[in-house]
Amino acid sequence: MAFEVHYRTATCGELTSNNVDRPVTLAGWVNRRRDHGGLIFLDVRDRYGITQVVCDPEHSAAAHKAASEVRSEYVIQIQGTVKKRLPGTENPNLSTGAIEVLADQITVLNISRTPPFPISNEASQVDESLRLKYRYLDLRRPRMRDNMILRHRIVKAMRDYLDERGFLEIETPILMKSTPEGARDYLVPSRLYPGEFYALPQSPQQLKQLLMVAGLDRYFQVARCFRDEDQRADRQPEFTQLDLEMSFVSEDDVMQLIEGLLIFLVEKTTGKRIKQRPFPRLSFKEVMDRYGTDHPDIRFDLPLVEISDLAGKGTFGVFNNALAKKGIVKGIRVPGAAGYSRKEVDELMEFARTYGAKGLVSLAIQPNGDLKSPLTKFMEPADIQAIIERLEGKPGDLLLFVADSEKISNDVLWRLRVLMAERLKLIDPEELAFCWVVDFPLLHYNEEEQRYEAEHNPFSGMEESHIERLDSDPLNVRAKQYDIICNGYEIGGGSVRINVAELQRKVFSLMNMNNEQIQEQFGHMLEAFEYGAPPHGGIALGIDRLVMIFADEDSIREVIAFPKTQSAQDLLMGAPAPVEEKQLEDLHLTVRPTETK
Amino acid sequence: MAFEVHYRTATCGELTSNNVDRPVTLAGWVNRRRDHGGLIFLDVRDRYGITQVVCDPEHSAAAHKAASEVRSEYVIQIQGTVKKRLPGTENPNLSTGAIEVLADQITVLNISRTPPFPISNEASQVDESLRLKYRYLDLRRPRMRDNMILRHRIVKAMRDYLDERGFLEIETPILMKSTPEGARDYLVPSRLYPGEFYALPQSPQQLKQLLMVAGLDRYFQVARCFRDEDQRADRQPEFTQLDLEMSFVSEDDVMQLIEGLLIFLVEKTTGKRIKQRPFPRLSFKEVMDRYGTDHPDIRFDLPLVEISDLAGKGTFGVFNNALAKKGIVKGIRVPGAAGYSRKEVDELMEFARTYGAKGLVSLAIQPNGDLKSPLTKFMEPADIQAIIERLEGKPGDLLLFVADSEKISNDVLWRLRVLMAERLKLIDPEELAFCWVVDFPLLHYNEEEQRYEAEHNPFSGMEESHIERLDSDPLNVRAKQYDIICNGYEIGGGSVRINVAELQRKVFSLMNMNNEQIQEQFGHMLEAFEYGAPPHGGIALGIDRLVMIFADEDSIREVIAFPKTQSAQDLLMGAPAPVEEKQLEDLHLTVRPTETK
Repeated sequence: MAFEVHYRTATCGELTSNNVDRPVTLAGWVNRRRDHGGLIFLDVRDRYGITQVVCDPEHSAAAHKAASEVRSEYVIQIQGTVKKRLPGTENPNLSTGAIEVLADQITVLNISRTPPFPISNEASQVDESLRLKYRYLDLRRPRMRDNMILRHRIVKAMRDYLDERGFLEIETPILMKSTPEGARDYLVPSRLYPGEFYALPQSPQQLKQLLMVAGLDRYFQVARCFRDEDQRADRQPEFTQLDLEMSFVSEDDVMQLIEGLLIFLVEKTTGKRIKQRPFPRLSFKEVMDRYGTDHPDIRFDLPLVEISDLAGKGTFGVFNNALAKKGIVKGIRVPGAAGYSRKEVDELMEFARTYGAKGLVSLAIQPNGDLKSPLTKFMEPADIQAIIERLEGKPGDLLLFVADSEKISNDVLWRLRVLMAERLKLIDPEELAFCWVVDFPLLHYNEEEQRYEAEHNPFSGMEESHIERLDSDPLNVRAKQYDIICNGYEIGGGSVRINVAELQRKVFSLMNMNNEQIQEQFGHMLEAFEYGAPPHGGIALGIDRLVMIFADEDSIREVIAFPKTQSAQDLLMGAPAPVEEKQLEDLHLTVRPTETK
Repeated sequence: MAFEVHYRTATCGELTSNNVDRPVTLAGWVNRRRDHGGLIFLDVRDRYGITQVVCDPEHSAAAHKAASEVRSEYVIQIQGTVKKRLPGTENPNLSTGAIEVLADQITVLNISRTPPFPISNEASQVDESLRLKYRYLDLRRPRMRDNMILRHRIVKAMRDYLDERGFLEIETPILMKSTPEGARDYLVPSRLYPGEFYALPQSPQQLKQLLMVAGLDRYFQVARCFRDEDQRADRQPEFTQLDLEMSFVSEDDVMQLIEGLLIFLVEKTTGKRIKQRPFPRLSFKEVMDRYGTDHPDIRFDLPLVEISDLAGKGTFGVFNNALAKKGIVKGIRVPGAAGYSRKEVDELMEFARTYGAKGLVSLAIQPNGDLKSPLTKFMEPADIQAIIERLEGKPGDLLLFVADSEKISNDVLWRLRVLMAERLKLIDPEELAFCWVVDFPLLHYNEEEQRYEAEHNPFSGMEESHIERLDSDPLNVRAKQYDIICNGYEIGGGSVRINVAELQRKVFSLMNMNNEQIQEQFGHMLEAFEYGAPPHGGIALGIDRLVMIFADEDSIREVIAFPKTQSAQDLLMGAPAPVEEKQLEDLHLTVRPTETK
């Protein structure tokens, strides 16, 4: 690796006691300046590290004078000689901590105003909008620098792994066609065709399938994707996915490949441990039952347990009402929490209400075996005991129950489970727990729009023996779909696809598209399937989220160089922004007068 | 490399005589079927090659029957055994030409209609719009497949080379801010901010410089860029560049790096020869004088020679008029072309007129030394002789002159030079001639708009000793700019940048921007330069064009998987296209009524 360039002969991260007496030229930013005992010490920083520079007026009056004028974040060049630090002054936290550079000459390459927040002290909390406006300063801080380096390394390792296995990276267009299915598209008006628009891709799904029809066998792309959604949760208008497709494969082929890739990435770029290998494969039904979500965090146990069959045996209104409305009763055991105060239990109730439950039913098993619970008034001891046994409750445990619709019960208990795991410190931050979720239904029914919708996307294939159920029992068709989960985040999903035009058309029809709509939106796909489309399947992995997890960050904005805010603004460049009238004219557009709402 | 997947145990490109008697399962497309002597021969194709499959009814009646029903481009799976071909029937043109697979069983995985153009016969000329509409079939053809593979390999090798040298690939946003400078932007209307727009980036120029201010030291990106220009020449609305920036560098550092990269790419991905190493560095003035263009093809000589000082010595109106209008007279020697017929010379005249010249003046030196030229009537023999000597004319040569403005003379003779080199077969298709062009002026004067314009971009730095000329003599400021040329194509260009806010502001002012415009468009850059911007420089290489040259193609559309037409349409997906009224409403836009022109 040659990092030597015009302004330097070494970086600020590479000099050690092996280099003593070597004449060097360094260049970097003043991280800190200390005046001590007539000497000036400069910590000089670049991407690679920090080197201590000493300016001794008896060695070089000019260097000392120049150093006396520099301030934090000035860009300077230092010519000098590597010296061993005095015994006792070494800094074991720095790779260069055994040496310092005695300056012969210091040149200021550029000055700096005082930054709006400190660069050298990362402990200071800085408002995120200030960080985004001055992103070029935020990225100077070691945490963000390390995130950018990690992201580079992860993506590079992905490419190496896939290249070795015969995958071709093929670029697909960003200027695409709008498809009303799915999320809202970003549109790009055409200048040459008045009233017509391109759309930015939500994913290269169709094109990657066409690349399989083209016989290219193994495709991938680190692909930018776009969704004009309201930015709930941790979303960005543009995000990056590893998009991949393979021909002549079964579900297992894709899962094996991706499992190998993820293990490679963890081992190559992190010091983290993988909880279980091979990754467990859990059915959709199993994870919904046990974890209340299709992206479970399996680093810890704390399973959800359904007690609907036991809950109705007494006269407890909360349970009985929920069951009468076709709801369910489900609980979770919190080990050692029987001593929670009323206030602590009330806080959990409030938490449950935030996510839509009417409340929580608690059952504390005192260390002496006594029970503290509203249930004791309404149910026979034997029936309560059966519930306790179902949950494997022990003295000292707190059992918590939700009685509500299946959806709300699961949603609340999923979140409660994660909350309790954090409280109980069941989570090892150095552990990565991957799992596959499989056996998804192909379709679900959208009550609101009165139509079937694809669980994953309309291109997912299905178990061959279930094809006839498309007519008789569409909700019981098993999709050839797989999602990959890590530490409770869905980091990817895919499927083996439909490759037969008639079957694809049938799925579109089930989704209430008429022939004209199918032809207009997907005619080119159906036509392509008539020219020898091979069996194929693929996956997309969310790169932002994967890097976020590997980097121990809580938001994808921390692993994107120039992210937008939750409200889709670029605070650095100032986008979006008004444009000149001439530009709108060229695009045959006018802006509608704003309505006051 | 494990290419084994559910439907196959080997690819159609890997079996050789080492595999005889191995039981295999192949999957692929029927490239050709031949019925011969009671047997059926199927050439089965996948991305990796072609394997001959033999169906012998005495070995497997079922396989033979299945084979009798397949047609071209059917997708089939073959189970069988590898056999040595009979002596004399080997095909040395195929990697698998020594063997064939005797089929036990053939399964049709998918059928195919007859393709709109033949896949297996590449010699057939196919209309480009048909190829683009059925791109998934066009990409099945070996030429296009090989182009996709070459592109993947080139880009992978770029990443490997830069990763080894400490460059970080960092993704920058596609949803950016519009900057009126430069080409026309593609705009993306914002839904959340009525009347405001994002713009697709023409390049990540500003952000890569900000990454240098961020101290990230070495950045690159395989970056998608967008320009809404009228598609003259071989342009695409979206194109891909290797975008790169480094800190603490001089021009030479960037040039050394890129020269090493290009040599690495050529050696790693092609069998081509590089004409000259190190790449020659030619000044802008030198190449304009000698080749009439700033992106000269130096695979051959045929220099342009100026004779303005000699041309005015007689009474030849064409020369004298051009000189009187401050034009120039320049010529080129075409070896061995003295025998061109009047028709042939007339065709060259016509060619010259196409590019704006009023004509060409010819001077044929007959093998016996006699001259055939209009000049002989208007100039003294000695003056004509001086011209011949200047061009090093020899008996048998044809000298051709253009007398016009400098711009037109250069433009016509540049193109004439290339035309004649092709005719004279001076071009070796296996040779790559790279050169650098340096010593560009920082600015040129746009007569039409009455203002200075940046020769490269407004961020280019300049020779330090020339900074004061910005006031006194702006056109004589030398930029720290370099272009890299290959075989007459500009494949990239860059510069060492300005990193001082005041100097940057001055350049914007020279370009007639007022303070408000500067602040509005580039305020964030100028502010960033005040927080310790290091010296930095970079380059952008046009990947589409580079791959095109390496692939011996004439258009970048041949090396892009899904290109748009010259009129910016996607014929496969059908984009651009009208959108639903609801979408426009969401974006607060209306389409203007079309005017009839």
